[in-house]
Amino acid sequence: MNLTVTGAHLPSGEPVALRAVDGTIAAIGADVTAELGDEHLDGTDRVLLPGLVNGHTHAAMTLFRGFAGDRALMDWLEHYIWPAEARLDADDVYWGTRLACLEMIRTGTIAFWDMYWEPAAVARAVTDAGLRAHVGLPLIDGLDPSRGKALRDDALRSLDELADTGPRVLPCLAPHGIYTVSTDSLAWVAEQSATRDVPVHLHYLEIEDEVTGCLDRSGLRPGPYLAGLGLLTPRVVLAHGVWMEDAELGAVAAGGATVVTDPVSNLKLAVGRVFPYGAVRAAGIPVGLGTDGASSNNGLDLFQDVKVLSLLQKHAANDPRVLPADEAWAIATGAHAPFLGGVPELVSGAPADFVLVRSDAPELGPGHLTANLVYAAAGHVVDATVVAGRVLMRDGRVDDEAEVRTKAAERAARLGVL
Amino acid sequence: MNLTVTGAHLPSGEPVALRAVDGTIAAIGADVTAELGDEHLDGTDRVLLPGLVNGHTHAAMTLFRGFAGDRALMDWLEHYIWPAEARLDADDVYWGTRLACLEMIRTGTIAFWDMYWEPAAVARAVTDAGLRAHVGLPLIDGLDPSRGKALRDDALRSLDELADTGPRVLPCLAPHGIYTVSTDSLAWVAEQSATRDVPVHLHYLEIEDEVTGCLDRSGLRPGPYLAGLGLLTPRVVLAHGVWMEDAELGAVAAGGATVVTDPVSNLKLAVGRVFPYGAVRAAGIPVGLGTDGASSNNGLDLFQDVKVLSLLQKHAANDPRVLPADEAWAIATGAHAPFLGGVPELVSGAPADFVLVRSDAPELGPGHLTANLVYAAAGHVVDATVVAGRVLMRDGRVDDEAEVRTKAAERAARLGVL
Repeated sequence: MNLTVTGAHLPSGEPVALRAVDGTIAAIGADVTAELGDEHLDGTDRVLLPGLVNGHTHAAMTLFRGFAGDRALMDWLEHYIWPAEARLDADDVYWGTRLACLEMIRTGTIAFWDMYWEPAAVARAVTDAGLRAHVGLPLIDGLDPSRGKALRDDALRSLDELADTGPRVLPCLAPHGIYTVSTDSLAWVAEQSATRDVPVHLHYLEIEDEVTGCLDRSGLRPGPYLAGLGLLTPRVVLAHGVWMEDAELGAVAAGGATVVTDPVSNLKLAVGRVFPYGAVRAAGIPVGLGTDGASSNNGLDLFQDVKVLSLLQKHAANDPRVLPADEAWAIATGAHAPFLGGVPELVSGAPADFVLVRSDAPELGPGHLTANLVYAAAGHVVDATVVAGRVLMRDGRVDDEAEVRTKAAERAARLGVL
Repeated sequence: MNLTVTGAHLPSGEPVALRAVDGTIAAIGADVTAELGDEHLDGTDRVLLPGLVNGHTHAAMTLFRGFAGDRALMDWLEHYIWPAEARLDADDVYWGTRLACLEMIRTGTIAFWDMYWEPAAVARAVTDAGLRAHVGLPLIDGLDPSRGKALRDDALRSLDELADTGPRVLPCLAPHGIYTVSTDSLAWVAEQSATRDVPVHLHYLEIEDEVTGCLDRSGLRPGPYLAGLGLLTPRVVLAHGVWMEDAELGAVAAGGATVVTDPVSNLKLAVGRVFPYGAVRAAGIPVGLGTDGASSNNGLDLFQDVKVLSLLQKHAANDPRVLPADEAWAIATGAHAPFLGGVPELVSGAPADFVLVRSDAPELGPGHLTANLVYAAAGHVVDATVVAGRVLMRDGRVDDEAEVRTKAAERAARLGVL
């Protein structure tokens, strides 16, 4: 079904309407009108804006939200999260991912990059929820090349399972990180990514040990190390990048990879440093924003994270002029990282992915909309979320919301994490 | 009118009802029932919680939200904010404060400490909105004792104007800071506070220059300096405290003053340091949480600020175990700073100030409510806000909301800040 939005306005205050045909923006402007049989969305007192892109998460970890929090990273992972994850089945992952999608829809996210177990279940959840996602199975061989065959088998099986999920759900290869995947396996991932034209999504320099470990094992810093493996191509998305230094900045910029910063997760897990945004931007590296998994954030509302992104950079630079609102908002929409697949410009021919924001929310007034979106709003200002021309939320309500909440709670209870 | 809340639950999941008589909790428990003629609030799927306390703000600065943001502090103040403030009249302040109260009610704040021009207009706005506040006129003599008489006249006039605003709105003396008020005037404020039993609310060590300036002028660090003036009594609320060191910790602890941390404002204005929470807590100093004015935050939603409070301390301490969720939530409710006037414990005989939170909000599930309130929620999870037994928000809706938004926008337009 086609969709017409009428009576909305642009951030400038100008009136705007929009018509979507077959999931694509067919017309946008002041004088667009509905055609008979179109689905209709009333944009009165609503501002039409691009949706947000979550460049790094583990969606189903909503099941573990608040479970064993406020603990040291390895204690939390080894004694709580990993044992619980060992009990996960596909239905757990499905409902955890649905809960994540529900939150993302409610807070204006249209697309995300996921790395998690049971990727076919993730894909099914994303498809049912209506969002876009890149989905990948975490690949780990514990730096042991003898486990490389198992890693490769798992990876290929996941790609097979995800072969027919498009166009909204796309597979990626998700080697967990350079401290958990052997050089041989990383080289194989690079080769598969090139041959199959499949994106790669991996953790990169979240903690300092990744740098020292890489130096110890390879004699190289992580920048040249990944460059040598062919894993810094424009098809690669690097999550975190906190410990990047000159060697990484040069290598990543030369290779064309995208870096996704996760400021809230980095603070919550106290990774020890602030993402070097100024240097990354100066190097010309594409930058996106991610929440990380809900259990290290603990939400998926990018409106809150974009605020922290900007505040933390001002603090780290000791300069309140750093990362101003327009720039922060652009990053959250994916405008500075095209490979992430956002739709930062709503023009004819673009995918019909957008949100309507309640411009009459008190915290969005009296003026200066973009500054208020970044610094004053939370995600509940979003009133409607549309992806591929399909209305996923209308008047702040999402279909199936109660069922998703109930089922996710049942799965968390089953896993013993409540 | 009396009020009965039925069908709600406690954070533990136990059912609870509550009856308020003449603004006080008359009964609370599983078996409380309504009496004929009571106003009724349905608590189904709602958790009954204390409201939050905003220990430091300049409420009417909502008018300047987003105006000339992302600038260096003194550039922003001298070239934008102060010239705009020079044009303020009482009606501007009234509607700016009403907008602030609207946001606070919507996000579960029941009481705040304000420092702003036209305090009688602030008081009228708070009275009309239904919140509680301590209200004070900023007192400034530019360190020039010859302007002390004008300061004292202004201060006494403001106390007169605020004499009959109680019991929800209480006056305080609000010397702007130790770098803008002379020693003579601060001594006079201390004396008036003691004689009249009136609280004092002042900025304290937000920026490093306050320390060096105090040393230059008095030969003392700010701790001993204020102690010597009698301005660290239990009636004193110190906003910021970022640059407190041992001399301040000892003096403030000995005097019994309360410190309010404003983590979001401190990051946004890049004050150069993180509030030394661990040391302040170890010294036994009462700690509260504040937003600061909306134009340096830029919101008044304490749910967002309590998250940043905890995250920033974890980061600064390089330890994710620091300031866990329970402790952060307690601070936001005023439980660690009784002088701020919150109601962190809902018991019979306490003021009937509380909120109902939508426990069916997806981000509050599947379990671990307190962690989710701190790390996952924003203020829109609040469904009802009650102060002194009066329902200020019901089903997420506040009376007069549209009028407040419209009037505030008119006043901001008049001031030329849109």
